[in-house]
Amino acid sequence: MRTFEEIRNLIEDSIAHLEFKEPPRSLYDPIVYTLSLGGKRIRPALALMACEVFGGAVEQALSPALGIEVFHNFTLLHDDLMDDADKRRGQPTVHKAWNPNVAILSGDAMLICAYRLVCQTTDKEVIDLFSRTALEICGGQQYDMEFESRTDVTEAEYVEMIRLKTAVLLACALKMGAMLGGASAEDAEALYDYGIHIGLAFQLQDDLLDVYGDSKTFGKNIGGDILCNKKTFLLINAWNAANVEQKRLMADWMARDSFDGQEKIRFFTALYDQLGIRELTESRIEAYYRMADEDLARLSVAPEALKILKSTCDHLMKREK
Amino acid sequence: MRTFEEIRNLIEDSIAHLEFKEPPRSLYDPIVYTLSLGGKRIRPALALMACEVFGGAVEQALSPALGIEVFHNFTLLHDDLMDDADKRRGQPTVHKAWNPNVAILSGDAMLICAYRLVCQTTDKEVIDLFSRTALEICGGQQYDMEFESRTDVTEAEYVEMIRLKTAVLLACALKMGAMLGGASAEDAEALYDYGIHIGLAFQLQDDLLDVYGDSKTFGKNIGGDILCNKKTFLLINAWNAANVEQKRLMADWMARDSFDGQEKIRFFTALYDQLGIRELTESRIEAYYRMADEDLARLSVAPEALKILKSTCDHLMKREK
Repeated sequence: MRTFEEIRNLIEDSIAHLEFKEPPRSLYDPIVYTLSLGGKRIRPALALMACEVFGGAVEQALSPALGIEVFHNFTLLHDDLMDDADKRRGQPTVHKAWNPNVAILSGDAMLICAYRLVCQTTDKEVIDLFSRTALEICGGQQYDMEFESRTDVTEAEYVEMIRLKTAVLLACALKMGAMLGGASAEDAEALYDYGIHIGLAFQLQDDLLDVYGDSKTFGKNIGGDILCNKKTFLLINAWNAANVEQKRLMADWMARDSFDGQEKIRFFTALYDQLGIRELTESRIEAYYRMADEDLARLSVAPEALKILKSTCDHLMKREK
Repeated sequence: MRTFEEIRNLIEDSIAHLEFKEPPRSLYDPIVYTLSLGGKRIRPALALMACEVFGGAVEQALSPALGIEVFHNFTLLHDDLMDDADKRRGQPTVHKAWNPNVAILSGDAMLICAYRLVCQTTDKEVIDLFSRTALEICGGQQYDMEFESRTDVTEAEYVEMIRLKTAVLLACALKMGAMLGGASAEDAEALYDYGIHIGLAFQLQDDLLDVYGDSKTFGKNIGGDILCNKKTFLLINAWNAANVEQKRLMADWMARDSFDGQEKIRFFTALYDQLGIRELTESRIEAYYRMADEDLARLSVAPEALKILKSTCDHLMKREK
């Protein structure tokens, strides 16, 4: 079984050899640019590892795995445009480096390239899974945008949004790899559930790090979610736990058009501390990790076969986006 | 063999039964809206007719044919956003009726829905053809946008752009239907070429109608291309044929920020008349139609089998967009 490093090298090498050489250059350059920005390639890595867990050769899953990575990067490209984000992984986003129309059209071409890679499998169920997942992710992004202008987002709605926006693609990668590796339907489904649970844990971790992380290791500025009033797991639970006076102060901060950013971050962090939001979030993350362990325990394979997959997830889930 | 009316009813009925019912509504409503705006459904009709020409049952080609129609409407949705068009088929465009982000995301979902339909076939070559075509269409749109800011577009570049933007999808629909109907590789290819040639003829016809058409039957305002300096087949050839003084007047009109629209239209129409651009364009259209006839003559099927397909093309190509 290959190590994570070997798997990652194979993926990087394969991405570098994807052909985006036809004219017009202005259509394909932004695709090459986006794929070259890096990232941990966790989704294709999970697909290939899952394939190996069930005795498959990684080559069987390689094209669909790359398709998932291209798709993931396509969603970042279009999401950054919709959110009007300036930077992605420290570099200008495509609509800033080129322009919004280029971002729309190159993104479309990238989605087509993703499908072309996924469709190199002859397993129709794999393609169906990919289509269903891709639509779910669009749904997640739509909810995410809608939540911006809503003040009554419930915890359940939020968890459903992050399940769609983040967790289903990890789950899809794992299940796809398992299917292509020859797993039984039960095993493939258990691995899908595992992906959902680590995905939810990962996103709550991300919410937590926005407030309590170290800006050096987190890779983005602390408090970004607080500054833009993002309805995270923390904010929703703080609102639910707050008394009348605390709610009034929160609403007041969120309604202000101009404010001292550090002061706003300090206010919310202190409030989260007071209300025990950090512990609440940590215990929810732990609960998702326990569910993920239970999913793995359902698998028909020997625990040793899961070692690399599990250690990779444990390692990467600590910090990746 | 079914009549065009029967084929069209089958397509309308099938589109009406496509399921876009999951939440979030705001993701799927614009898709239903776009598909309900109508259009002649010429692409899926050509696919089904081509399937029948080779003895296939239309059911074999139905899902991929619908996929092509959904894809075509997806391109209109995103093109309208990129061109910031207000209306499509007399109704507000999606980014006007909703907003640009909805147009981006619903368009993405629509492209996924198109693939889901195309991928219901088990014929991998059909899926490959679709992917290749879809990328070509993105390339055509990219060229079209680039030509806006260029003044040196050649006739060859223009023809290549309309081949990519318009002709390849008609060709793909025909070839796909032929393949799914059991045609030989040679027959499928001949029908592909036929699609390219009628597609080119159709687009030049459209360029011509913008100047010489009747606004009632044309369905859009006359002179739209002239007003926005669109590098059409007519403008490119007029520029090539113009003398120094005519070129100076043309450049002057095209550089003006404010002008009387009717006066500008009158100037270019008179110039086209003087330079014989109408006849030049008509004879090119005729040439493409002759090539299309030659493509059909290469087919191994009896001429009677092509009657409905050919009469439909002749009829629809007169006026459709």
